[in-house]
Formats: sequence, C-alpha cells, structure tokens
Amino acid sequence: MSLVVRNIPRAEDGVIDALAAFGVATVHEAQGRKGLLASYLRPIYRPCGVAGSAVTCEVAPGDNWMIHVAAEQCRPGDVLVVAPTSPCEDGYFGDLLATSLKARGVRGLIIDAGVRDIAVLTQMGFPVWSKAVFAQGCVKETLGNVNLPLVCGGALINPGDVIVADDDGVCVVRHAEAPAVANAARKREANEIDKRAQFEAGVLGLDLYKMRERLAEKGLRYVDEAP
Amino acid sequence: MSLVVRNIPRAEDGVIDALAAFGVATVHEAQGRKGLLASYLRPIYRPCGVAGSAVTCEVAPGDNWMIHVAAEQCRPGDVLVVAPTSPCEDGYFGDLLATSLKARGVRGLIIDAGVRDIAVLTQMGFPVWSKAVFAQGCVKETLGNVNLPLVCGGALINPGDVIVADDDGVCVVRHAEAPAVANAARKREANEIDKRAQFEAGVLGLDLYKMRERLAEKGLRYVDEAP
Amino acid sequence: MSLVVRNIPRAEDGVIDALAAFGVATVHEAQGRKGLLASYLRPIYRPCGVAGSAVTCEVAPGDNWMIHVAAEQCRPGDVLVVAPTSPCEDGYFGDLLATSLKARGVRGLIIDAGVRDIAVLTQMGFPVWSKAVFAQGCVKETLGNVNLPLVCGGALINPGDVIVADDDGVCVVRHAEAPAVANAARKREANEIDKRAQFEAGVLGLDLYKMRERLAEKGLRYVDEAP
Amino acid sequence: MSLVVRNIPRAEDGVIDALAAFGVATVHEAQGRKGLLASYLRPIYRPCGVAGSAVTCEVAPGDNWMIHVAAEQCRPGDVLVVAPTSPCEDGYFGDLLATSLKARGVRGLIIDAGVRDIAVLTQMGFPVWSKAVFAQGCVKETLGNVNLPLVCGGALINPGDVIVADDDGVCVVRHAEAPAVANAARKREANEIDKRAQFEAGVLGLDLYKMRERLAEKGLRYVDEAP
Amino acid sequence: MSLVVRNIPRAEDGVIDALAAFGVATVHEAQGRKGLLASYLRPIYRPCGVAGSAVTCEVAPGDNWMIHVAAEQCRPGDVLVVAPTSPCEDGYFGDLLATSLKARGVRGLIIDAGVRDIAVLTQMGFPVWSKAVFAQGCVKETLGNVNLPLVCGGALINPGDVIVADDDGVCVVRHAEAPAVANAARKREANEIDKRAQFEAGVLGLDLYKMRERLAEKGLRYVDEAP
Amino acid sequence: MSLVVRNIPRAEDGVIDALAAFGVATVHEAQGRKGLLASYLRPIYRPCGVAGSAVTCEVAPGDNWMIHVAAEQCRPGDVLVVAPTSPCEDGYFGDLLATSLKARGVRGLIIDAGVRDIAVLTQMGFPVWSKAVFAQGCVKETLGNVNLPLVCGGALINPGDVIVADDDGVCVVRHAEAPAVANAARKREANEIDKRAQFEAGVLGLDLYKMRERLAEKGLRYVDEAP
Repeated sequence: MSLVVRNIPRAEDGVIDALAAFGVATVHEAQGRKGLLASYLRPIYRPCGVAGSAVTCEVAPGDNWMIHVAAEQCRPGDVLVVAPTSPCEDGYFGDLLATSLKARGVRGLIIDAGVRDIAVLTQMGFPVWSKAVFAQGCVKETLGNVNLPLVCGGALINPGDVIVADDDGVCVVRHAEAPAVANAARKREANEIDKRAQFEAGVLGLDLYKMRERLAEKGLRYVDEAP
Repeated sequence: MSLVVRNIPRAEDGVIDALAAFGVATVHEAQGRKGLLASYLRPIYRPCGVAGSAVTCEVAPGDNWMIHVAAEQCRPGDVLVVAPTSPCEDGYFGDLLATSLKARGVRGLIIDAGVRDIAVLTQMGFPVWSKAVFAQGCVKETLGNVNLPLVCGGALINPGDVIVADDDGVCVVRHAEAPAVANAARKREANEIDKRAQFEAGVLGLDLYKMRERLAEKGLRYVDEAP
Repeated sequence: MSLVVRNIPRAEDGVIDALAAFGVATVHEAQGRKGLLASYLRPIYRPCGVAGSAVTCEVAPGDNWMIHVAAEQCRPGDVLVVAPTSPCEDGYFGDLLATSLKARGVRGLIIDAGVRDIAVLTQMGFPVWSKAVFAQGCVKETLGNVNLPLVCGGALINPGDVIVADDDGVCVVRHAEAPAVANAARKREANEIDKRAQFEAGVLGLDLYKMRERLAEKGLRYVDEAP
Repeated sequence: MSLVVRNIPRAEDGVIDALAAFGVATVHEAQGRKGLLASYLRPIYRPCGVAGSAVTCEVAPGDNWMIHVAAEQCRPGDVLVVAPTSPCEDGYFGDLLATSLKARGVRGLIIDAGVRDIAVLTQMGFPVWSKAVFAQGCVKETLGNVNLPLVCGGALINPGDVIVADDDGVCVVRHAEAPAVANAARKREANEIDKRAQFEAGVLGLDLYKMRERLAEKGLRYVDEAP
Repeated sequence: MSLVVRNIPRAEDGVIDALAAFGVATVHEAQGRKGLLASYLRPIYRPCGVAGSAVTCEVAPGDNWMIHVAAEQCRPGDVLVVAPTSPCEDGYFGDLLATSLKARGVRGLIIDAGVRDIAVLTQMGFPVWSKAVFAQGCVKETLGNVNLPLVCGGALINPGDVIVADDDGVCVVRHAEAPAVANAARKREANEIDKRAQFEAGVLGLDLYKMRERLAEKGLRYVDEAP
Repeated sequence: MSLVVRNIPRAEDGVIDALAAFGVATVHEAQGRKGLLASYLRPIYRPCGVAGSAVTCEVAPGDNWMIHVAAEQCRPGDVLVVAPTSPCEDGYFGDLLATSLKARGVRGLIIDAGVRDIAVLTQMGFPVWSKAVFAQGCVKETLGNVNLPLVCGGALINPGDVIVADDDGVCVVRHAEAPAVANAARKREANEIDKRAQFEAGVLGLDLYKMRERLAEKGLRYVDEAP
C-alpha cells in the first residue's frame, strides 16, 4: 500500500531563489492570497528564510521511520515536508537526521509535528518550521507514503511544489505556477518600494490608496468628540 | 454607523515615560493587580518596551481597511490598539503600515490578531504584540470604529488610556488614573530595591515578609521525612 | 493538612552534571523514552540548559505563598518545580523570587503556570521553563505541600528526582535510576558520534540502520512516477 | 478597594422577554452584529434560552467568595455574570448556589470559568453557560467587585445590561439600547418569515437577495467543467 | 479569479447509501485508515448520520456570500462542504440557509467554521458538523471558489467525493474509490459480526486475534505483584 | 521492559458503590479538594455515573495493542484507565473493545485520547470519558505497561485506586483512603441537605455561612450607586 515516488518535478533554481528572496508575505500576496500553511508552524530560530522543492513524507503518529526513506529521495535544494496521519507532536526529527539531510543539500524541514535537538539545529543553521518542540522519541514500525500529495498545516502540498518559508511562516507555490508567481512578486515588490518611500515621507494610506471617497460612501463618519 | 473620533484625551508625556520605565509587572501591581491583556499577546522580538496613548481601531475579520483610517488619528507617542469583531489571526499589519505609523511617531502596535513581515519589523525596531504571526492578507471592504472603547485581549481599552507593553506582555492604565499609578509604581519600585538587596544577601521571604506565624496558624506543618 | 518535608534524597553532583551535559533528548532516550514533561513548558530564553534535584511545590491557583516556603527547602544545585492544583497561568514568579533562589544556589525553575519579569530573569541568567509569560500578580492566602510528589506538565515528579531541562524542554529522571541513566546516556552519545560522522559523509539512515529489507517486508514499494 | 453597587438600572420586563423570544442570533444581528460573548461559553444543557438583567461579579482565580455577595444583589429576572480576574476553569458554582439563586428568581448564570453538579443543574432546569465543566472546589479568601463593569467572554458587560442566552451562546444588549434592539429584532424576524417561505419554496438566495449582478461585477465566472 | 464549476462527478446513490449505513469508523478503516477530517468538527446534535456527494465552497473570513452561490450548485443527495481561507469561527450558516438547502435536497453541512440557529436546525433535522457554534453574522463582499478542491478540517476534499458523517465525525471517500470502499466496508462489517459475538461470549482479543505469541516475542512480561 | 502486573489491590464493593452515589464533586471535596482529572476528559453521553477500581494501561501514540492486554486483567467492577505516552487523540477504543470489556463486567473507560463508535457505545450504555471523539484507527506494534502507575488527565493513577466519574468529569481516590473518603463524603452530603433546604427557603450564603463580618474586615464596601 505504501509508495515511494522517485521522480518528481522541480522548479528551476532561479525561480526558487527568487521566491526565497521575496519571502512568504510577498509570495502569498503575489499568487492571490493563497498557499499559506497554518500559523502554528513556527521556525525554531530567527531570522530564517529558505525556498526549495517539496519532498513529501507521510508518517504514522509517533513513528519516524519514513523520514529515513524520504531522505534518500531528497536532492540539493529540496525542502522536506513531513505530516503525520493524525495529530502528533512527538520529536520526529533531531540532529542526526538534520546532519544527514544537510549532507544531501536539503535546505530545511517543514513538519506538522515536533522537533528536538533545536540547540544543535540552531548552531548548524538547519532551519525547521514545526508545530512543537518536543524531545519525545519515535518508533520505526509503520509505513507511509513518500512523494504523494499530502496536507501539512492545513494546506495541500504536492511533491515538487515550491516551499517558501521565513520568519512569517510557510507558503506553498504550485510547481506549474512558480515562474508566474515569481514575476508577480517582482512587480509587487517594485511597487512597494515607491509606497514605502511615500509612507516614510508621511503620506497616509488613505491618500496613497485614494480611500477617502469610498469610505465616505460606505458611511464612515468623523466626529470631534466621543458620543 | 461607523465612527472615527478625532479628539481623545492623552496622558502627559512625563507620566507615560515613567510608566514605560516601570514596565508591565510593576505597573500592573501598582494599580491593584488589574489591567493586563491576555497572555497570548506576545511581542515579535525581545527585549522590547514602550508606553503610549491608546488609539483604538476595530476591524472586521480578514479586513484591515480601518487601520489606514486609524493611522491618520495617531500622533507621536501613541500606541495603536487593534481588535477584530470576531476571532481572527490574519496578517492585518506588515512593513508598509509599520513604516507609515513609524513616520507618524507611533511607538508600537497591540493587535488581537496576526502580524506579518516580522523580520523587517524587527530590523526597523517597530514593536508589535500580537496573537499570531501569520502572513494571510486582508481585504478592504468593511468599516469599523476608530477611537471608541473596545475589548482587546480580554481587557477594556478606552481611547487615550495608557498602554504599557514589554517582554511580559501588555497592560492598560486608565487615562485618569495614570498619574496616581505612576506614583504608586515609583513607591513600589523604591521598596523593591531594598528587598532585592536583602534577597541577594540570603534573607528568606519567610522572614522578610514575616510569614512564619501566619503559615503556622493556617496549619502548615514541617516534617523531617516524607510520610 | 499541608506539609513541608525537610529531607529529600538528592543524586550525586557528578551524576547530575553528567545528565545536564547530555541534555533532554539524550537523557529521555537513554531511560527508555520516558520522563518528558509536556511540550508547552518552554524556556524564557535560549540557549539554556541545567540539571538539578527537584524540590516540589504545590500552589493554589493565583496564590504563590508556598513558593516562599519552598525557597527555604532549596539547596545549591536544586531545581524548583511548581505546579498549581488547577490550571492557572498567573505570574507566580518574578525577579525578587529569582534573586532569592539564585542566592540560595538554585539552578532554575520549572512552573506549570506563568512567570513575569522575564527581561530581568534573562539578564540574570536565571532560566525558567513555564506554561505562560504573564504578569498577573498572586495572593498569599492558601497553603499547599512542599516536597510531596506532584504532577507537573503531565509528569510525576518526586522530590529529589533529577530534572534535566534545556532548549528542547524538561525531563525527569527518578532519583534511584539517575546513575544508570547517566551511564546509558554516555553510551548513547558515544554511539552517536560515529553515526553523525557517517551521516556527514553522506551515508543514509536506510543503510546505516539496515532498514531496506524490513521496509520491503512490510510492503514498501518504489515507483518512478506518481500513479 | 472592593465595591458592591446596590442599585443598577434594569430594562423593562416586556423588553427583556421580547429579547429572550428572539434569541441570540436575531438580537445580535438586530443591534448591528455586536455584543456576542466568546463561543467557548457553552450551555450545560440544550435546548435552553433566557434573558435577564446582568448582575456582574468579579472573582479571584479559584475563589468563589464574591458569588455569595453577588447573590444578595440579584432580583427576580436577573442573570448573574461571573468573570475571574485571570483565566481559571475551577468549579465556582454548583447545586447549592444554584438553589440559592433560583430561590431568588435568578434566570441563569454566565461564567467565564467552570461549573459543577451539572446533572443536578440540568434536573433543576437552571441554565449555565460556562467555559468548562470542572468539579474543582474554590476557597473564600479574596474580594472582588459586584456590579461594576467587567469583561466576560471577551465582551464588556455593564450591570443592568440585558443578557440574552440560548443554544447559540450569549449576547449582551446595552441597557439603554434594549428597547430599540427589541424593535429592530421584531422587524428582522417579521422579514425572515417571508424569506423562510420563499426558501422553502425553492427560491435561491441568489435571486431573493438579487446577488447575481454584483457577483458578476466582482468577477465571478461559471464554467461547466473543472479547469 | 473566482470560479464556479457546474458539473461535478457524483457517486451512485446505492454506493452513497451503503457508505452512510456503514458509518465513519468502518468506512475509514475500510479504505486503509485514511480520509478523516479533524476531530474538532463536531455534530450539532446526536445521533446523526448522512452520506452524500461533496459540493465544495471556499469562503473568505467573516463572509458567507459564496454559500448562496454554492446552494445553486447543490442537488438532492449532496453534502455542502465549506472552508474559510483563513481560520474563522463566525456563524456562516443558520436556519434560512438550512431551509434553502433542505428544499434542494441537501443532506447536511460540513463547515470548518461556525454555525448558528442550532436549536432550529436540530428541530428541522438538518445536521451540521462544525468547528464552533457562534452567532456572529457575516458580510457579503468577497468572492471564493465553488467546486474546486479545498482543504477542510485538514483533509483534501474534491468536488464529488463522498462525505460520510455521523456521531464520530466526518470522513471523505474519493469518488473513484467509493464502490471499492463500500465493498471493503461490507466485508469488514460482516467480519465484525462474528467478532462481536465472540467478545460477548467472553473471548479475549488476545485469543481471538492470536496476539499472545507476538507480545511475548516483543518482550512483554507478566508479574504477579508490582515491582 | 514492558510489564503486566496481575494482582492489584481493589477497594470493597460497598465503598466503591458509595463513592459512585456521592459523585465526583462531593468526593473531590470530601478528600480535601484533590484528585480531579483534567476537565477536557468529557463523557460521551449524559447523564452518566460510575465508580470502580482502576486498571491502568499505557499505550503508544496511535497504537491500541495494550488495551487487549489490559482487558484480560479486568474484573467485574473495574474501570479501565488508558493514557498514551505522548499526546494523541486517535480512536483507540470502539464498539468491539467495549463489547469485550462489558462482557467482563468493566464499568467504563477513562482515556486520555480518542474514542469512536460513540453512537453504539451510547446505545450499549458503556460510558467513556475521553479527550476526543475521533475515528482514527490504531496499529498494534508497540508495547506498554499494564497496572503500573500512570498519569492520566494530569492526575496520578495507581492500579486499584478508585475512579469516580460522572457528568462533572473524573476523580481518583487512593485505594487506602477510599473508606475514609466515603465517610467524609457521607457527612458532607448530610450537611448539604440542610443547607439546600435553607437556600430554597431564601436564606443567603452570606448569612448561612456567617460571611458578612469577615468580608467587612477584608474591606468590602457597599455603595448605592456606581462611582
């Protein structure tokens, strides 16, 4: 029943690197305000920021066997995405697995469960976004799937989708949409440079975005004193 | 239906600065153990610490339009306090709004919802106490009120109340009580200097606070070995 | 009804220091994957790491009186473990109590409740693992027990058990088992040095742990393309 | 420091009874979508539904002393509203207090904490909306205020405001606005009778509310097959 | 950007009815222990149980406009599945929408948000599985998609998948797998009849499932007294 | 490593039945306000109420193998208490296991995890107090201990302790203390009969418990109007 898919699509390095540079908030906006994983997935250290191709790994609760299987499928530039089949916060991942993944060029881990050895992972500079920090060890008894689509942090992740993760959390970009999203992010960011300058100069969003008329139409009223 | 109140009372700068220096725990105690906002409002970076006059801003879930309206009402020394009309953790606030508020002299943001761009906010030194870090973008469709009383983090905030916020969280001081609270905090802190010295010298709280007799009256018993 | 037990067993300093050096994850594994306290007990600053003998302190909700009683029972090298009789996140502990405990040689605090003054505690280097950061002050009205067994963070703590705490959380080691656990941890860590080197050299866990055959027996299948 | 206010405004019985009949959802809408208490306040049995004048009672964590003080201030038709000064789920209220309140004509209890003896309360027909069901007993040591404004379930409650509570939760109506809200609710409900008949007859909301044009303007597109 | 897909696959009535009869636990097991939605999706009344074809509806936080759009796409035998684009517990759905859906033959609602008017829905016999009961009203300003795949309660739902829901929660069965899952469930249930009889007769699972040998191999030991 | 202890102490039937009749709140008070399990352990149906001797069962996350082992150790009048070694809400227990336990005379289940088939369990009248209702199936791979002490719902449970459970939740009474607690509960209940009569007659707790003087000493003040 359990499958490992060897070949998955991967976006071009240039696109992935561009998405990493834009960061989660910009990428999320650029693709139409979609793709965020749940806010409970927090980085173990800050600042941090990576992007990479998703290798997906389904695990049983309290069982990290499949992470070893998934490690073999990872290539330089990948991000490993792990989700349990039911809610669990055990420490599926620690410094040995991080050493292994780092040696294979993996850029980080997204795990809808727990992580441990975070002092060492911090020293190593191996970033992890997790639901919990918890040292609880795992068994190796039950199979799962590697590189099939899964839901992590409430978002669907397909193998080969681009994962963007930074201090703000984690966002997924569909593999086929990654170049277009990178372009849209580029435009958005260019646009923001000018806006930032205007805000620094004291211009209000009310004026910059020409909001006053529509606010009045909707019925906003100003009074000098509290009623 | 939606109102913006232009004029609100503000405490004197000296009182506000004094409250900032005492910090949340001391101010909370000095005013009779009241005024704390919920513990889930956490700062995006540490150490941090500000005080300022509250400008209040009510927003709809997933809609940050009114923050632009509120920005215009802020003056140097203010703290913006934002609460949604129902629970929401979307990213109402990011680096552009922070740039705008900072340009207006706003000292920080308290938001019973999410915030994004926290790496940039950290670099800017613009402190935010929020319920979540989440990049989810907002729409601009629904009005709310600015500078009417609201509940944020389970505490009533009136416009012009003094907000004190630091690593320990957030506390509100009523505008009319701020001078008296600052005085009480000053006395409390003076009192603590001596206590701290005694604790450093090894004196026990049991003796410093003369607790032994009352503990015995209540029935506390000492035994040498576990029963 | 309320008791303070004066004499409790304490592990040898050498054993305690060894456990501190191994850290939570290794100690937890070395004793058979048991002893962890709940993951919601997080350190107020990082990196951090201590071990010590547990002095246990039961408190009423919103009432920190017994912490003063417990302070007297602490000796150099101890770790104070505080749990309320029902869930509470009030700020039972701040800089004055930390000053007192530090003067007595206490190495840290584990509290299934809230803590405050964390900026000062961080400066002092007094580590605390707590359920919340919350400035809410406490009363001193109700007794509890000191140095009787209690449940903290979902784990049973006996007075004199060894507490190990670091960035990964908190683990308890039974007093009588501490020397054996330290030995087992030593072996485990020695074993990991070699593993780490192999992982760094690119060896896969699949091969290092000889997992391939058992995975195949369980039914794992590899395919080149997604089905 | 602690105050009991003896005289509070109360809305007319007719207005209160009307609001009870409309129920929480209708009243909440009729007053402009405001006034709801947090959704975690759930009734101990269903169906249920009351309205009454709020008598407010602030309690310390784990301490139900002030409920006895508040009981004396209750009159027939009142609803008691209890909130702790910091989060607590202890069982502040059980069958004896319910017997006392029922004897005084109190219609129900809203408590941002725990309740116990719910089997008996159910048999008695004394409704309670609470945060938890928990048998944990309380002490009687610390004062609080009765009939001062407080925040319960994230909403500001003034003494004498009208509380409406049913299977859907709890809503507060300001004392001064109660007659107008009752009128608005009456209109809303009349309006809904016709709508319900049309929905039963198969009319779509799209047509009843004439939504199709505005949806198209906003950009909604229909396709026969998934893209 | 927002799409409504008019034609979706639907499983045969016989298959759907069979899955309804087996219930969530059996169906979940029969398809290899997958497909469950999160446990926080609870029914508003019990007992309850339905199955139907999923019509999916994405909504903005605090905005139920698209439910009206989705209603038109529903046919007799469908189950409406609603998920917000970010976490929200507002009351998206009440008695008017339920009347409309019931008139169209919809069998129930799964909503990763709040519901209201539950007393009326209970009387109507219209079952809802929701994250919250909350009366908070919604606006109608922002578009979403209807009948595109979405994640609800942490599970991927494709339009036309079969939803099975009862007292135990909610399970999704892929449209293409539904007949095979119904067959597997039939076998599983037949198998359980005999097991139930044996358990009733006092046979132990240890013997019925022949577990004793494998337990011993794994190292289970029996002792007469606690060590 | 994993042990099953065959012989455990059990309280006398008369004591157990008496404790069942008093119920959780009274028993908890009678033994000095201790022994409650966490409030998140809720019964699957109401009203309900049992007491029995605890048979304890430790399970791995997502693995219910040991429940079969524990079943053999249960005798008529027992209550099975199950806790996972790390947080898990999988459906460890359903109608087949309930049939087996009921055939052995077991009175109910306390499980710090999930349960399924609750419609059938309700029909059978087999009560369960659980953390979640969730159909997620379990594997049978990992051993645990039966009849060793464990922590369930934050409370220490020794094998043979008396478990009392009803609509209010779950309470544990130490085996050795059970007769004394039953006596104390009897006195408490007798005492409450008179109190209840007085409350019904309109006597206030303020007078019944002679609280007025102490309240005044603590500083409670009455005013006619809000300040």
